[in-house]
Amino acid sequence: MAYDFDFLDDCLDAGRYSTRAADREQVAGDASPHEPRRPDAVAWPASTAEVSRVLAAANDRGIPVTPRSGGSSLEGNAIPVAGGLVLSTADLTSVDVRPDDLSATVGAGVVYDDLNDRLARHGLRFPPGISSSDVATVGGMVANNASGFNAVRYGETRDHVRALEVVLADGRVVECGSDVVKSSSGYSLKDLFVGSEGTLGIVTEVTLALSGIPAEKRAAIVSFPDVGAAARTVADVVGAGLQPGAIEFLDAFTVEQLRAYADVALPESPTLILELHANNAGVDEDLAFARGICEEHGAERWEDASDGEMDEIWQARRDALPAARAYDAEKDVVVIGDVVVPISKYPDIVTAVADAAADLGVPTPSVGHAGDGNLHYTPLADFDDPDAMERAHELNERVVETAIDLGGTSTGEHGVGTGKRKFMAREHGPAGIDLMRSVKETFDPKGILNPGKVLPDD
Amino acid sequence: MAYDFDFLDDCLDAGRYSTRAADREQVAGDASPHEPRRPDAVAWPASTAEVSRVLAAANDRGIPVTPRSGGSSLEGNAIPVAGGLVLSTADLTSVDVRPDDLSATVGAGVVYDDLNDRLARHGLRFPPGISSSDVATVGGMVANNASGFNAVRYGETRDHVRALEVVLADGRVVECGSDVVKSSSGYSLKDLFVGSEGTLGIVTEVTLALSGIPAEKRAAIVSFPDVGAAARTVADVVGAGLQPGAIEFLDAFTVEQLRAYADVALPESPTLILELHANNAGVDEDLAFARGICEEHGAERWEDASDGEMDEIWQARRDALPAARAYDAEKDVVVIGDVVVPISKYPDIVTAVADAAADLGVPTPSVGHAGDGNLHYTPLADFDDPDAMERAHELNERVVETAIDLGGTSTGEHGVGTGKRKFMAREHGPAGIDLMRSVKETFDPKGILNPGKVLPDD
Repeated sequence: MAYDFDFLDDCLDAGRYSTRAADREQVAGDASPHEPRRPDAVAWPASTAEVSRVLAAANDRGIPVTPRSGGSSLEGNAIPVAGGLVLSTADLTSVDVRPDDLSATVGAGVVYDDLNDRLARHGLRFPPGISSSDVATVGGMVANNASGFNAVRYGETRDHVRALEVVLADGRVVECGSDVVKSSSGYSLKDLFVGSEGTLGIVTEVTLALSGIPAEKRAAIVSFPDVGAAARTVADVVGAGLQPGAIEFLDAFTVEQLRAYADVALPESPTLILELHANNAGVDEDLAFARGICEEHGAERWEDASDGEMDEIWQARRDALPAARAYDAEKDVVVIGDVVVPISKYPDIVTAVADAAADLGVPTPSVGHAGDGNLHYTPLADFDDPDAMERAHELNERVVETAIDLGGTSTGEHGVGTGKRKFMAREHGPAGIDLMRSVKETFDPKGILNPGKVLPDD
Repeated sequence: MAYDFDFLDDCLDAGRYSTRAADREQVAGDASPHEPRRPDAVAWPASTAEVSRVLAAANDRGIPVTPRSGGSSLEGNAIPVAGGLVLSTADLTSVDVRPDDLSATVGAGVVYDDLNDRLARHGLRFPPGISSSDVATVGGMVANNASGFNAVRYGETRDHVRALEVVLADGRVVECGSDVVKSSSGYSLKDLFVGSEGTLGIVTEVTLALSGIPAEKRAAIVSFPDVGAAARTVADVVGAGLQPGAIEFLDAFTVEQLRAYADVALPESPTLILELHANNAGVDEDLAFARGICEEHGAERWEDASDGEMDEIWQARRDALPAARAYDAEKDVVVIGDVVVPISKYPDIVTAVADAAADLGVPTPSVGHAGDGNLHYTPLADFDDPDAMERAHELNERVVETAIDLGGTSTGEHGVGTGKRKFMAREHGPAGIDLMRSVKETFDPKGILNPGKVLPDD
């Protein structure tokens, strides 16, 4: 369908929208292997008022609007699959820090690393610890309920959202929540918007609860004889109530890829990266305790890491995805897996990936924010080999279904986008899906907001 | 309106409902000063299936259903103001603890203290720390998003809810969430039910995230020269990122009442109760740091408290409400105030209560979960003195409006019930209220669930 976008002249300052092919191409895809699609236009509003005018007008005209900011999503969340307009929140970059309240109110377009650079002067941090920290924005993180390395101690994005400013499909602006640590006042609309991927409204401003930068950090890299031992160690560390700042799992294949990609000096074994945070000297007691658990599970190598080494190690961990992509020139990443299971089931899901990879003959490195029970796996295949592609997708389906059957979830932090829609009914059941559909119809009766995402087709 | 309740014979086992006046009287009120009202019948279903059958049949007949469990609510939340049926979840008392997952799945009727007794053998705890811990149930806590003494470190009930089983108005059963620490899978329906006070569905089962019982605790009672110094100390302790296990404020009037009620050995000064939790020896470092902040603000007396003394101190804190009620035989508590402000505004709200009390001539002790920015205040008046009663209500309105104007919320943990409905529009604005109404209509089109609560009249 072709739309006439002249109405945007009345909604936006000059130069704040475009129908040029090159501009539309910039916002056609995200960071996932999902197929891009060019929208018909792209808008970069500079204020909530502009977002409101654009949505009201698009709603009147029934034009699909796909919100976007960093474009680093991994399940097609930001791809405008129905065409229409991409509304970028990248220019909403206000930052108001209130150190005394351990909070900040920021525009949806503020980049995660930029915010944390700004907060550091106050000894504060917005701490979920995402991989795409130099690109992802606060608005996108709220939309996907993103998290990462440090969620095991500090929680996911949801846990840090005190208040939201949201523009509804018809252009109304709603303020949800306030700058307080708790409230029992009415329905928690903000929690409904968090993780709704822009299908219920477009987040323009976020009030975040911040955490202190820990005064003390300790870290270690630990190698294990097999994935089961590593996974059981994670379950025990968390079950003991240790609350590490981060606890990451890398399988031996990932370590092999990292050695090839960036000459990382680690033995090719299942590995845990452990980081402990505290504001006092108790951190060394915790480290010794964690080491004891690792040794009980047969750890073969424990290496204390200094601050400088940690930067390298974390860079290596961030490189896991590019390393997987670079490993074999013939094969690329087909799916970026993202399941979570109850922590006691972590050994089961790690094993399930390894078993499916062997059974289907799909090379599949896996890594994970293990302390959350979160596992990422990246089946590799030649995109020109339909059989290999089918097996890679089959692996993903087996793993996601196993995760759900183990009492887990189909996505821990990447969201549903287009890629996980097919698992929604299995995970949430018919009554859950019915309720979600009712909510969508209530908030967006014309279905203009990010169509084709989150909910399965009827 | 008179209803025929014979249909309940087909929904419930024998003896599981009653229309006897004495039984209806038992469930007419809650623990607040709000006026009780006898329902027309009361049901005590023994299973989710029974709850489902009752709701489906009541919905068909348009009969109001007010859910209830412990009846310890403080804003009329459980009072059946529209008559009809009270549905008690008190008999839903299953408990399934999974220590390895740091989680438990429990029936809505499980009492808070009973659950924590059961969890103690595993070194675990459901930690919000509510005052009415021997009466309040998990279901009621979810409905009101309750919290208390320990929320400052461990969070409110919402932060501990991983999954819910909810029966909808039409009898459908929906499972929301799963036993994982994080998820980005679809709309967070569970967060919509948490704090909805049974107006969107009736919670029958809850999967809770548990915390470890801290290995180390330290505590102190600290007296200050004035309320401002005490309140500024709280803001500084929290702002420094100390994360105390509890930090409670008591004004001098409350201490005076506690001395009269239970011979509590404290000087009649504004007082903070400070408790620090840790799993390691760092706790003493934290205690010294906290003491330094107290001294900077002119603390007049710092008393370290041993474990035995702490039990007494916490009992005294729990006695604050009965002590207020007992203080003057002519006067009773008119309102149980419950506001939260941004922590930097805590001195302002404490002062606002004191100023309003002086200005209106209403004796008003105040206490609070200060680390959350949460203040409770209890204006006292003779219920037979209309002028005094009016001034007591006027005090509450001034304080709530001040809290909202300071960027806070009208209720931190008691919920809206009937008492806070009048503040909803001011707090959430027209768009927020419209959305909440739409959600209510979507979930409960006939309006049978806990009518007259949460949302204001049109």
